[in-house]
Amino acid sequence: MRIAFQGEPGAYSEAAAIRFSDHADLLPCESFDDVFTAVATGKATHGILPVENSIGGSIHRNYDLLLEHDLPIVGEVVLDITHNLLVLPGTTMEQVKKIYSHPQALAQCERFLRSLPGVSVEATYDTAGSAKLVKEKGLKDAAAIASDRAAHVFGLAILRPEIQDFSDNITRFLGVSRTADSDLQADKTTVVFSLPNEPGSLFKALSVFALREIDLTKIESRPIRGRPWEYLFYVDLPVGRHDLRCARALVHLAEFARSMRTLGSYPSWKGRDAAQQAS
Amino acid sequence: MRIAFQGEPGAYSEAAAIRFSDHADLLPCESFDDVFTAVATGKATHGILPVENSIGGSIHRNYDLLLEHDLPIVGEVVLDITHNLLVLPGTTMEQVKKIYSHPQALAQCERFLRSLPGVSVEATYDTAGSAKLVKEKGLKDAAAIASDRAAHVFGLAILRPEIQDFSDNITRFLGVSRTADSDLQADKTTVVFSLPNEPGSLFKALSVFALREIDLTKIESRPIRGRPWEYLFYVDLPVGRHDLRCARALVHLAEFARSMRTLGSYPSWKGRDAAQQAS
Repeated sequence: MRIAFQGEPGAYSEAAAIRFSDHADLLPCESFDDVFTAVATGKATHGILPVENSIGGSIHRNYDLLLEHDLPIVGEVVLDITHNLLVLPGTTMEQVKKIYSHPQALAQCERFLRSLPGVSVEATYDTAGSAKLVKEKGLKDAAAIASDRAAHVFGLAILRPEIQDFSDNITRFLGVSRTADSDLQADKTTVVFSLPNEPGSLFKALSVFALREIDLTKIESRPIRGRPWEYLFYVDLPVGRHDLRCARALVHLAEFARSMRTLGSYPSWKGRDAAQQAS
Repeated sequence: MRIAFQGEPGAYSEAAAIRFSDHADLLPCESFDDVFTAVATGKATHGILPVENSIGGSIHRNYDLLLEHDLPIVGEVVLDITHNLLVLPGTTMEQVKKIYSHPQALAQCERFLRSLPGVSVEATYDTAGSAKLVKEKGLKDAAAIASDRAAHVFGLAILRPEIQDFSDNITRFLGVSRTADSDLQADKTTVVFSLPNEPGSLFKALSVFALREIDLTKIESRPIRGRPWEYLFYVDLPVGRHDLRCARALVHLAEFARSMRTLGSYPSWKGRDAAQQAS
């Protein structure tokens, strides 16, 4: 088992990959596209991708890539995102003149960064990459914003823990593979569909689940660019696709959806212990 | 009329404010919180806030602020986001050694930035602020990523236009005010609600609209942190709240929703000309 993730060792996606399976090889990739390509070409058996964050919302780019590729979702991981200010051991706050990190992490720590007058902020491609930079160049007047795992990987000290503006910062990742594993104890299914532009069509679509007493654990509409009044719907169902109710609901939905794709059916995230049992 | 927005003159939010009304005073604010405070305390009559982006998804933070404050939505604006590389007139690509911009803009131009070896990237609080920096410091070896309006405001040249990774980059902004304007030709209503954790409760909630032939133009669920299996739903309806069908549907929804707030009823965005007529 080899899991492709976006970023360098110590990145949040790597932490998610380790939660997905803690005895797999890991393959760092430069971009989300590269993660999909690595799995599609067999360089990795699995890929791990962030799809939604509690502050930033859904990462539509990765839903687009799930639609472009034919790689089924085989699992999910939920990760608390905790940003820390990392320095070489011994560096004090007064010595820090420059802070490096990925743009998204910098944005999520804006309040903290604004409280530091005279400190400049430099964007990098990666939270973990910024930690690596501070370590490898021996920067005594600089810091990186990254995970505590990055501190561990690169031998840095945590000068200020949990510096993100909002503590309620969690990210959900999906694991993809080339083929669905039929042995999986799937209890969650992700479906994407579009509907004809007719009054009540969404209600009709949701009735295929409600009539079979299947709840939704996520629903999101997204306008389809260039096709006014048409929407793509992302839906998560708390049931495996081979459950008879689910199978029948999806056949029912296909009767009138303009397009429909089951992106995968997989075990829902139940915390670390459960994940280890499953893997 | 004075519209508060987050950022400096030349920011995308300023462009949205001008689209909202092109004959209003504008009040730049440091943060989204400050925009709400400016309107709540009367320093501004209106505030303009980004709530969703076609690549990044919904900006949950601003939905949270809409719920925390009691400022009704009075309008919306849709804006194409086009990032450009701005320099002092005469600077060539070969001279550029450093690029400044806001973390989100840097993230949206990652592919372009990666194609420039040896150029360092520095994060700032504002796309427009980075343009201002290049101008005011007379930086001949630097560039800023910002809007074409920022180029105009600060007298910079556009060295590379449209450098964002994805052309399909649009942001929806909402306008808020202290009081709803009853003269508004409202044809859109935004509602937030939560539901009891019972099978079929979402279907029941949506039936109050479907039974009255009211479509949804947006629906999104969001898990409520610390309350597993409970969700907040954002819904946009293509109808004003004083339309009898809408009024009745909302009364109906209130019968069984655990909580419910109408965030506002307002004219939908119909492009610039329509907006000018309305304002």
